[in-house]
Amino acid sequence: MTDTPSMEFEAHEELAHLVAKGDGSAIAAFARLLPPEDTPYTISHLDDDDRVRFFALLSEADADLAADLLEHFDDMQAAGMVAELEPQQAAAIVEVMDSDEQADVLAELDEEDLEAILEKLPPEEAADTRQRLEYAEDAAGGLMITEYLSYPQSFTVEQVVDDLRTNNELYNEYEVRYLYVVDADEHLVGVVPMRRLVLSPRGSALSTLSVSDPTTVQVDTLRNELEDLFDRKDYSAVPVLDAQGVLVGIVQRSAVQEARGEQAEEDLAKSRGIIGGEELRTMPTLSRAARRLAFLLPILALTMVSASVIKLFVETVEKLPILAAFLPVVAGLCGSSGGQAVAVSMREISLGLIKIGDVRWVLAKELAAAVVIGLVLGVVLFVFVRVTQGQVELGLVIGGAVPIIMLFATAVGGTTPLVLRAMGMDPAMASGPLVQALIDLTSFFTVLMLATAAMAWLVP
Amino acid sequence: MTDTPSMEFEAHEELAHLVAKGDGSAIAAFARLLPPEDTPYTISHLDDDDRVRFFALLSEADADLAADLLEHFDDMQAAGMVAELEPQQAAAIVEVMDSDEQADVLAELDEEDLEAILEKLPPEEAADTRQRLEYAEDAAGGLMITEYLSYPQSFTVEQVVDDLRTNNELYNEYEVRYLYVVDADEHLVGVVPMRRLVLSPRGSALSTLSVSDPTTVQVDTLRNELEDLFDRKDYSAVPVLDAQGVLVGIVQRSAVQEARGEQAEEDLAKSRGIIGGEELRTMPTLSRAARRLAFLLPILALTMVSASVIKLFVETVEKLPILAAFLPVVAGLCGSSGGQAVAVSMREISLGLIKIGDVRWVLAKELAAAVVIGLVLGVVLFVFVRVTQGQVELGLVIGGAVPIIMLFATAVGGTTPLVLRAMGMDPAMASGPLVQALIDLTSFFTVLMLATAAMAWLVP
Repeated sequence: MTDTPSMEFEAHEELAHLVAKGDGSAIAAFARLLPPEDTPYTISHLDDDDRVRFFALLSEADADLAADLLEHFDDMQAAGMVAELEPQQAAAIVEVMDSDEQADVLAELDEEDLEAILEKLPPEEAADTRQRLEYAEDAAGGLMITEYLSYPQSFTVEQVVDDLRTNNELYNEYEVRYLYVVDADEHLVGVVPMRRLVLSPRGSALSTLSVSDPTTVQVDTLRNELEDLFDRKDYSAVPVLDAQGVLVGIVQRSAVQEARGEQAEEDLAKSRGIIGGEELRTMPTLSRAARRLAFLLPILALTMVSASVIKLFVETVEKLPILAAFLPVVAGLCGSSGGQAVAVSMREISLGLIKIGDVRWVLAKELAAAVVIGLVLGVVLFVFVRVTQGQVELGLVIGGAVPIIMLFATAVGGTTPLVLRAMGMDPAMASGPLVQALIDLTSFFTVLMLATAAMAWLVP
Repeated sequence: MTDTPSMEFEAHEELAHLVAKGDGSAIAAFARLLPPEDTPYTISHLDDDDRVRFFALLSEADADLAADLLEHFDDMQAAGMVAELEPQQAAAIVEVMDSDEQADVLAELDEEDLEAILEKLPPEEAADTRQRLEYAEDAAGGLMITEYLSYPQSFTVEQVVDDLRTNNELYNEYEVRYLYVVDADEHLVGVVPMRRLVLSPRGSALSTLSVSDPTTVQVDTLRNELEDLFDRKDYSAVPVLDAQGVLVGIVQRSAVQEARGEQAEEDLAKSRGIIGGEELRTMPTLSRAARRLAFLLPILALTMVSASVIKLFVETVEKLPILAAFLPVVAGLCGSSGGQAVAVSMREISLGLIKIGDVRWVLAKELAAAVVIGLVLGVVLFVFVRVTQGQVELGLVIGGAVPIIMLFATAVGGTTPLVLRAMGMDPAMASGPLVQALIDLTSFFTVLMLATAAMAWLVP
């Protein structure tokens, strides 16, 4: 809205200047000084070539920093930036990413880019990564990190302390609130809170300190079950086992919360017609347009179906063309009311308060509210039509239609997310347009039906 | 959708039965065995009197369990349940809640209920709680917990270990990854990772082990700054200081992530017209209806303004009543397209990728996509009108209007969230209806204007 360049505008120009010079360490030094809140902005505002060169130079100068910077972006955007690099450079960055972030970003790459990068990773790391990519993104296997401390049960406190001392640097980024005790086959046999280690004599065997029968989850434990677990227990992390009981990672409370936040933000985008909940304006125009059209074309079909009701009443509209102005008012108002009911159901589903068996309860609650809402808005519309059109009769038709449609609108809005979910569909994407189309159709039909029936009275 | 009672249905009936018997310890035993994912469902499906009695009995039998159960609910609902109890019972539960959860729930109570409960708390705890309620909910002061380990800088490792041993039970629910070192006035002077404690001789003074100049935040540091900090650093928690540099709490990564998830879910509800992002069907019908009407009445006004355009063209509609069917189709389609642009801007704002200075960049990106989208949908509509109405001329008017309106729709949709935000308003609530009203108005005007201009040609 202003022509004055903002500070951030200067930051990305400055960075572009450094990139042009090609001095990796100068770039790293600059990037380290960027305020964290400006980092995504500055980097995403480099032009495409500069951004590729920026990460290419940084992958050699400071791959850790490059990995940290990529964490500021959403997974799809980070994957796009990684895909633009030479496989060798991309692998240098990917290798030092946190394991959960690494899997999220790699999962967004296409097969060819992914393979090229995996080939450049150390074979063992590549095998681990391939394994992780097979876990569902939204299950414990996809949310877990593999940076944790595990020791054989025969180890003493002394041996653990020695290991901690030797690998002090490496463990900086580990979850260290718990130590995991495993047997010779890497099966989890116990968990030792780090605090307990502090309290114990150096000679104690880990097996004597560990909480046996610890709470564990499976690689396929779903995110909402993990949420419930962390709600219930004050753990900051739980161990993740594969089907054989082998410890393969730990899932942290914060990772579960973060995934929930991302899901909710994606749902918000989906509810407004962004497929998969993901679009950024840095994507190519044609692909953005194609993705948006994939939602708009079904909408067009739905809208044409509801509008086809109006065609049945062309004569009524011809006799009383002012109806053309009130049809969108009634449909818009009742559609908004239906949207509110959709939102409350989505929220109650997410909080675990309603299930498919509660359709009747939801209906009862919605209809009770709809009676009040319908009567209030019906009276307001009656008064408005009466005053602006000077016609009591038209006011009664429009104002009288509203409570009827409102009952339908809240009922459909409240139940559709439950029904879609019971059918195994994602309510975030489909609820809005389906509910809107049904309410439009009902609104048009009700108003035009009433007007047709009362025509002799409306147009004497 | 089915008459077979689900297992959860049986669970809440079973619980109601136990409540009727009034046996607190049997209720506690039952509640402990409930699968966590069914807990909110079961409790919220007790009828109101049973739910009050349930928490009343549990507050005496096992207040900790009652506090844990309340964490499964959103803050407003938990507050409602607490408010229904006798102040003494409510205080017993509130006292054992985690400090961050406690503040969130108490913040939702009305003044009178809050005072009644605070009076029943131990005076020191009540004073702390009052203090915490003054911090902004979405800042470090509102997100922090006060369960952390702090020690004077003169303490040795030995003394800390003694304290950990003495208070082993109490510290179970503490964040124990770091120890905080304070001076005589409770100013933070350093942080000791628990891991470093393990590695140090028992005689070392804490002051020699601590990371000096640790990363800290202020009580008024906002959530998005905390997010950036945790994105950038691998800390699991950071200390929170008041204006005098006194350590008052710690904010955990998971608390920040959790708050972000709640915000996104509330934004989703707001975007569909739920004021404050909060409504549950367990609230009284009249208050639900009143809250929904508070959104619907402005919508009605906006819709009437856009529909008033149609009134200006009553003669056109009278001559060509089929237009009444195509007006909602064009407006609905272009409105959906505008909604997509709103969603992308909301997402890019949340990811820190765009700011108010980028309005022109957003416009350029939106208009580029709109050209493609508008042309495709324009052609589809032309073909549809041509086939169903048998009229090339009407097809050209309807199909030709779409690309024009589409340019406007995506431009308004993409920029409105930025503009609202720059004006200090919440884009989640206002963007949708404002954008929809503007697009409706433009759609009606463009289609009717073109039809009026071409009338001689349309209706020979």
